[in-house]
Amino acid sequence: MHNKTPYLHDIGLDEAMRAWRAALIDADALGTLASESLPVTECLGRVTAAPVWARISSPHYHASAMDGYAVAADDTAGATETRPKRLVIGQQAFYVDTGDPLPAGTNSVIMIEEVQVSPSPPAPLPEGEGSTEARATLPPLSQGERSTEAHATLPPRPQGEGGRGGEGEIEILASIPPWRHVRPMGEDIVATQLVLPSNHRLRPADLGAAVGCGHTHLAVRRRPRVAIIPTGTELVRLDALDGLDALKPGDIVEYNSIVLGALAEEWGCVVSRFDPIPDDFDTIRAATASALEDHDLVVINAGSSAGSEDFTARVIDSLGQVIVHGIAIRPGHPVVLGVARARDAGRVAQRIETGGQGKPIVGIPGYPAAAAMTFDLLVKPLIYAMLGLLPPERPRLTARLTQKVYSPMGEDEFLRVTVGQVGEQVVATPLQRGAGVIMSLVRADGIVRLPRFSEGEHAGAAVTVELLRPLETVRNTIVSIGSHDMTLDVLADQLRRLRPELTLASSNVGSYGGLLALQRGEAHLAGSHLLDEETGQYNVKTIHELGLSRAQGHPDGVVLLRFVGRVQGLIVPAGNPQGVASLLDLTRPDVSFINRQRGAGTRVLLDFELAKLGVKRRQVQGYERQEYTHLAVAAAVGSGMAGCGLGILAAARALGLDFVPLFNEQYDLVIPRRFYHGELLAPLLAVIRSPEFAATVNALGGYDTAGIGQVIAEL
Amino acid sequence: MHNKTPYLHDIGLDEAMRAWRAALIDADALGTLASESLPVTECLGRVTAAPVWARISSPHYHASAMDGYAVAADDTAGATETRPKRLVIGQQAFYVDTGDPLPAGTNSVIMIEEVQVSPSPPAPLPEGEGSTEARATLPPLSQGERSTEAHATLPPRPQGEGGRGGEGEIEILASIPPWRHVRPMGEDIVATQLVLPSNHRLRPADLGAAVGCGHTHLAVRRRPRVAIIPTGTELVRLDALDGLDALKPGDIVEYNSIVLGALAEEWGCVVSRFDPIPDDFDTIRAATASALEDHDLVVINAGSSAGSEDFTARVIDSLGQVIVHGIAIRPGHPVVLGVARARDAGRVAQRIETGGQGKPIVGIPGYPAAAAMTFDLLVKPLIYAMLGLLPPERPRLTARLTQKVYSPMGEDEFLRVTVGQVGEQVVATPLQRGAGVIMSLVRADGIVRLPRFSEGEHAGAAVTVELLRPLETVRNTIVSIGSHDMTLDVLADQLRRLRPELTLASSNVGSYGGLLALQRGEAHLAGSHLLDEETGQYNVKTIHELGLSRAQGHPDGVVLLRFVGRVQGLIVPAGNPQGVASLLDLTRPDVSFINRQRGAGTRVLLDFELAKLGVKRRQVQGYERQEYTHLAVAAAVGSGMAGCGLGILAAARALGLDFVPLFNEQYDLVIPRRFYHGELLAPLLAVIRSPEFAATVNALGGYDTAGIGQVIAEL
Repeated sequence: MHNKTPYLHDIGLDEAMRAWRAALIDADALGTLASESLPVTECLGRVTAAPVWARISSPHYHASAMDGYAVAADDTAGATETRPKRLVIGQQAFYVDTGDPLPAGTNSVIMIEEVQVSPSPPAPLPEGEGSTEARATLPPLSQGERSTEAHATLPPRPQGEGGRGGEGEIEILASIPPWRHVRPMGEDIVATQLVLPSNHRLRPADLGAAVGCGHTHLAVRRRPRVAIIPTGTELVRLDALDGLDALKPGDIVEYNSIVLGALAEEWGCVVSRFDPIPDDFDTIRAATASALEDHDLVVINAGSSAGSEDFTARVIDSLGQVIVHGIAIRPGHPVVLGVARARDAGRVAQRIETGGQGKPIVGIPGYPAAAAMTFDLLVKPLIYAMLGLLPPERPRLTARLTQKVYSPMGEDEFLRVTVGQVGEQVVATPLQRGAGVIMSLVRADGIVRLPRFSEGEHAGAAVTVELLRPLETVRNTIVSIGSHDMTLDVLADQLRRLRPELTLASSNVGSYGGLLALQRGEAHLAGSHLLDEETGQYNVKTIHELGLSRAQGHPDGVVLLRFVGRVQGLIVPAGNPQGVASLLDLTRPDVSFINRQRGAGTRVLLDFELAKLGVKRRQVQGYERQEYTHLAVAAAVGSGMAGCGLGILAAARALGLDFVPLFNEQYDLVIPRRFYHGELLAPLLAVIRSPEFAATVNALGGYDTAGIGQVIAEL
Repeated sequence: MHNKTPYLHDIGLDEAMRAWRAALIDADALGTLASESLPVTECLGRVTAAPVWARISSPHYHASAMDGYAVAADDTAGATETRPKRLVIGQQAFYVDTGDPLPAGTNSVIMIEEVQVSPSPPAPLPEGEGSTEARATLPPLSQGERSTEAHATLPPRPQGEGGRGGEGEIEILASIPPWRHVRPMGEDIVATQLVLPSNHRLRPADLGAAVGCGHTHLAVRRRPRVAIIPTGTELVRLDALDGLDALKPGDIVEYNSIVLGALAEEWGCVVSRFDPIPDDFDTIRAATASALEDHDLVVINAGSSAGSEDFTARVIDSLGQVIVHGIAIRPGHPVVLGVARARDAGRVAQRIETGGQGKPIVGIPGYPAAAAMTFDLLVKPLIYAMLGLLPPERPRLTARLTQKVYSPMGEDEFLRVTVGQVGEQVVATPLQRGAGVIMSLVRADGIVRLPRFSEGEHAGAAVTVELLRPLETVRNTIVSIGSHDMTLDVLADQLRRLRPELTLASSNVGSYGGLLALQRGEAHLAGSHLLDEETGQYNVKTIHELGLSRAQGHPDGVVLLRFVGRVQGLIVPAGNPQGVASLLDLTRPDVSFINRQRGAGTRVLLDFELAKLGVKRRQVQGYERQEYTHLAVAAAVGSGMAGCGLGILAAARALGLDFVPLFNEQYDLVIPRRFYHGELLAPLLAVIRSPEFAATVNALGGYDTAGIGQVIAEL
């Protein structure tokens, strides 16, 4: 039995890494991998394990740098236009093509364009034929074809038109210095010089230099071998399923091993992805022990917490030692860092070829965002160390946080954010923070680290963002904050097709939230459908109220752009089992409602219509339960979480639900004038006004694209 | 016969690209490639050819986010510490593990740590056993192992210690809201939402999201197929040679195809590298026509100029149309941009799957630096366009040019530079500018573009550098400018082994040039061996003269650090055929000398010793010919370019030459005090003072490492 049961502690990230590193060094399990010799053509992206010294010079002989005549510079001494010197071709002057070696005794080249050739004995050159201009152009093709074989060798070719070879003399009108138009031996690389140091990741030009200085093979570090073992009785492989319908509640689609494997591949590893293993100590232990045989690092995915089915720490303990169990980071708290004992030190030492006797082994949490982020944070430095490298740094910038963020004391939080440049300010908008939300990584432009002993940051705080994408992405991101509509997804895709460098990043905070974001200068545009019950107009009143219009003294003002008309109604389960027909049915005790969040246009509409009917909010069961998008409302209905919700037809149709149409409404875009006329949004406006976009939106159903892209008002 | 002979023109880069693009669009030869469906696990780095919409939600059911009891929130209403409510396990409360689906009728989860369980009928909990702390820890292993099978399904497990399952009741001390500790269906991804847009390069998290929303395969763009055809009768494949000795003068080691192929692979292509083809029109044409059959783009390497053996333009003309021949850029002037005609439009259209009828075909110059740079400049945008992407932008920064640069009017010059941060200023030092110098790309940190109608830049000018390496490289580069010694190569390699993120970049401008660079604040250190004939001291006098010392009013001053002692002497051919024995032999008419450049310590030493002997400079044949490094001098002697040169033993030995020792000299390092005490140089000083470094230097021969790393003087 196991005499040690590791408990879940919460130590700081730096402390955890220090402890693990120290233990790995103790166990001789941290160090560069051995080298292997590979043909240069297979070395792109690999890391040199030894310096590359030049075996030969490049060029390895004195080479002509021009087409022309090789001569001894001394032979030209004293030549002038009035007292030219003549050199006999084949004795003092030798025709050379670019790249040809200089014949013995020569040390300079006269360009063909600068040479006057005369037959021997000398005679006046015929007009035109001998002129510089004519000679500089291509000779007729037949000549070139005929002389192909002859060029590559010396002595110079016996014959040629235009005075380019053969017998005769050349006339020198000026003395020339030695080594003119010559690439001397070693101009590029001198034999024995250092061409590439150790620990250098090989780029295309490096491969050329290595071959050019005499290497057909290079000593590069072996690629780290990483095993990834997904564990969990609930895990299913999607590609082993008999269709999506075979997915049962409780089944979890396994994809962490794909994400972790892809990360390791990007870092230069060879990856073994194991099939999911059920939650059983002996089975996991056996698979792990087997993986340790022929891998440099083993990852057990999940089971790293302290629940009844969490065997990872015990498995690691049984195969070596748990160094850290639990790190005070979010996401990613349940991490196990360990060192595997070598059961057969000799064999292990031979396998990892570093003299090491142990191997790093790690338990990574199961929630996808936590898995990817802890793997990057904890395992990447180890992989790079095996290759003799440090991980590349990510570009950083300072941005203004658009929302207040509370962070738990005692944990380093790694907040995923989208980043965009809106006017002069760079803004960072936090994404969903759940450890299980992989989309937070898909959408993220960067990471903001909220330190362990902070309680968070207020809205507007300047934060440092570590960018996950290139810096230029920030400049190329159109920040859309406001109400959600599915047509924004279509727009994002079509924009990317037209201009692959541009991203439309939409944050869904409701119509009012979007206009507030415009007020704070944090968005390029806002989708909004705020009805003014008095005028029947959408958005105009609120734009004025928030001081966004020039009429209200705003120096810039906004453009209100017609986007889509859409039908709002009640989303109900297929077949409408409760027979919901109007908003009055929301007061029925057997009907549960799911609402949208405060500030959403749909909620404003609901409140307005309920008031018209004289229905009190507290009469609506579920009024306080809220979702942030139409699709989330539909999903809530589809899953039985709620009996109905107010939303749009497209959302109901997408999930196979029924729809009770109630109102028509207008969903438009509000765009500050300077962005409307700016360069960044021009392609977006072009997409909005394209027939292709309207056609795609109409195909969704429930939308009206009449007048799409037209300016409703300049406010 | 060919009725068109294209001539070499010089048009501007932008004009050339515009013309080529227009012609490609005309020929329907520019556009994204078709898609292919691949398993998600093979999609890393590939580009989406279609948007990825969610097929299922994630989670696809309401999942418990904690280990605990699932309940209906309504059942807890009104519970308080004084008036607890009791829920019957198996009827009103159901044990769930994290990830389990909520049983029908439940909508909230109470964490196991917050639950009081009592057997039915209720009885007081035993002390300790029932405490929260004890229950939060791991149950004994046997329990976990036994229950593995049971967990994954509902209803809850029939039995468990510590009140975690089985029969009985749980006691509720407070009411809880609905949806607490629940991951609702669609929390991460809602079915039908846009998960990834088109034209998106897939990263690890994207693959996870795609699988998580129901995709086993993705539609990605086919990889562009690129053929690279090296041409030239003089080309040899190093790996086909019978050893390096088989290399003959005039042979050129072919490696451009490796460099261009590696670049294309980095951009995402599948590359066919052809074997070198001799300079013969029909052979090149046949290979090119064959390559056009099954590639999306064909590259003919070299033969792109207008010489007699330059068939590329004619080959392209015979298979389609030459659009541009010759671009006003340096390096890279002789470029051919063309469009290949489809001989069988139907077949071609099917092959490239874009409806296109032509294909881009390009002739790339033969000189290696020119080849790599024009390929990047001209071909990369096309490849990215085939993938539906734009090439990533390189980071830019502003740097101060350390040397005056003349640039030819009428050409855009792309100057390769090393970049380093020296104190507060970022400095860019131009590398060798020859089109044939591949090492200029190997060493380059960035590119400075000197525009077409500029004559160059003066020293100290602020220039924009497009970085080829990450920005952090600049901060991690130790800039060494001064005299060259081979031990600096060894130092650079050993530094990289110790600290892979650091680079020692040495520019060789001679001892005096190095001290001048320190004076201008452009280097972290200078290697110097400037002898003061009066004192016998090295470097001290010149340091004072240049005002680098505190004694001369410099606020910082320098540290003079002992580096290596070395023997200077005459490098002569093996066997010393001319019997050179002393500097007096340099006056012999049959002895030709090769000198070092002005400012080099070796040249100062020569002048000093010649003066002592009463020898005039003009008596030395070759005094004006100069090389910049010891190895270049040795190479000049080895090749017969010169009969002897002054240099160090290591250089002679490296090339198998003989050596006539004449003087001992000291080669030391001059380091401004603030850098000497700074963080950046600390690892370098550690390497210099390590026994390993001294051992490696001593193994070179001709060096004395006594006192290495000691401070000679603080000036």
